Amino acid sequence: MSRSAPVADLVARARAGEPRAVARLISWVEDEAPALREVMAALAADTGRAHVVGVTGPPGVGKSTTTSALVAALRRAGRRVGVLAVDPSSPFSGGALLGDRVRMGEHAVDAGVFIRSMASRGHLGGLAWSTPQALRVLDAAGFDVVVVETVGVGQSEVEVAALADTTLVLLAPGMGDGIQAAKAGVLEIGDLYVVNKADRDGADQLRRELRGMLALVDRPAGGWVPPIVATVASQGEGIDDLLAAVDAHRSWLADSGELARRRTRRAAAEVEALALAALRSRWGGVGGDGRVDELAAEVAAGTLDPYAAADRLVAEPPRPG
Amino acid sequence: MSRSAPVADLVARARAGEPRAVARLISWVEDEAPALREVMAALAADTGRAHVVGVTGPPGVGKSTTTSALVAALRRAGRRVGVLAVDPSSPFSGGALLGDRVRMGEHAVDAGVFIRSMASRGHLGGLAWSTPQALRVLDAAGFDVVVVETVGVGQSEVEVAALADTTLVLLAPGMGDGIQAAKAGVLEIGDLYVVNKADRDGADQLRRELRGMLALVDRPAGGWVPPIVATVASQGEGIDDLLAAVDAHRSWLADSGELARRRTRRAAAEVEALALAALRSRWGGVGGDGRVDELAAEVAAGTLDPYAAADRLVAEPPRPG
Repeated sequence: MSRSAPVADLVARARAGEPRAVARLISWVEDEAPALREVMAALAADTGRAHVVGVTGPPGVGKSTTTSALVAALRRAGRRVGVLAVDPSSPFSGGALLGDRVRMGEHAVDAGVFIRSMASRGHLGGLAWSTPQALRVLDAAGFDVVVVETVGVGQSEVEVAALADTTLVLLAPGMGDGIQAAKAGVLEIGDLYVVNKADRDGADQLRRELRGMLALVDRPAGGWVPPIVATVASQGEGIDDLLAAVDAHRSWLADSGELARRRTRRAAAEVEALALAALRSRWGGVGGDGRVDELAAEVAAGTLDPYAAADRLVAEPPRPG
Repeated sequence: MSRSAPVADLVARARAGEPRAVARLISWVEDEAPALREVMAALAADTGRAHVVGVTGPPGVGKSTTTSALVAALRRAGRRVGVLAVDPSSPFSGGALLGDRVRMGEHAVDAGVFIRSMASRGHLGGLAWSTPQALRVLDAAGFDVVVVETVGVGQSEVEVAALADTTLVLLAPGMGDGIQAAKAGVLEIGDLYVVNKADRDGADQLRRELRGMLALVDRPAGGWVPPIVATVASQGEGIDDLLAAVDAHRSWLADSGELARRRTRRAAAEVEALALAALRSRWGGVGGDGRVDELAAEVAAGTLDPYAAADRLVAEPPRPG
């Protein structure tokens, strides 16, 4: 399939790592641009190299500060870094992100760092749809590490873990109920735990509690045991340890075969999200054939039950447009 | 289609409003029981009567206390009330709900009130999938009003508004940045705004700010202008005004034709979620044909792009099992 000249040019520049071309392609992802299909086909062969690191944890633990410190450490090691800050809880406004981005200002003039905030404002399924595609763009652009930082709360923790090769869960002392402030689920998703603000009262206790709770999680024999790293990210303390732990996890992933498994799982979620989005827009969206609305009117009237309506939707071929 | 005897019996008892049968059917919804299909077919003709009231707002504004006070007012008016407390942000544990439910203990022995906490622990899409079905059960069981209270944060506000006939957005003074604490989006989703804890400092200012911000929202001519109701829910103050406002909105919905539009939209989302869930389980889930995994392995290896993989998934008929 021949590609249109402007798309081919943009893709070539993004693959060469040109920041403006990378930014443009990520805007296309956010805007769900039709040309994405062509872009992703062109980038496919260049993907699979970047190490995707997810950073999650409750509000106020210092995710942005820790990410910034980790980026600085990666840069000192000569590695190129992309950062995606995603806010899946806000379909309306990415306003809160701006403050966070300012704090990462030290990296703003470094061509080896690309930072981008993404609100999941689209209609095709938010994080599940847009973030993997933005990751593909950064991966193909040659960034060695891509950090996905969630600034939202709740379900986003789990979604970020599903996207990442390595998931960092951040906690800090003095966050109300300590570990209780974090959802029980975080004990299952972290590959590394970071006790940030480790110079504060309660940090040692938090570490002990966390170690105790992690010990209770069932893990397969020979599996990865998540380490706990103490940091004071605002002072850069513990960040070298953190980077060493991230790299150790990356090696384990590759050696154990888990990297391939995680990436296949990630691709499966992405393919599924794209397939469902395609069906959704066919059924009811712009250019769709409106079948959902007809069936829904019957369901609302009580003359059809929702399962029977869903069966019809799945079974019928699309109407000629 | 003939129905199996145990299901028919349970459905009959739920339609008669028997609490244990209602609770059982909602457990089936949570568990994604295969029999749901039969249940929903049996209930379809009895749905569409209940007034669905959504209650949302940031943590700490008094959602549970206000819901409880509203339930008491509805009971004084002789109306039967169902309450669904949903936590879409927690796929793992509904633990936090228990404390809230205890506060509604005064209604625990009232047969005219049915209270149920639901964690969106399922795999088929959470709130979008399970809550509409639980609503159907309560609707068919003859509850006049069903209150859907979200205990989560973030996107749940929007999701609850999508489910409700009437959406109450609660705010309270002294919540950090006041209105800023709530997402900008809540200004678009509320049918009624409640300034709770109205006896506290800052309540008048919050009302003024809120009125000013609501005035900036574009609304169609002749449309509903959301009123602001002041309450001290813990003392029962302002609750009669709140109920009057809820009823006024219900009348407006019916007279304007908006009720039918909202319900068709709600049914459309439900049908779509069920259809997508059916496809999803066919593609990759238990009993599925594993096509997603095969395509995902190619995508992860870079030999296929995700759009091309999605096209194949959508285009191919399911394999014989």
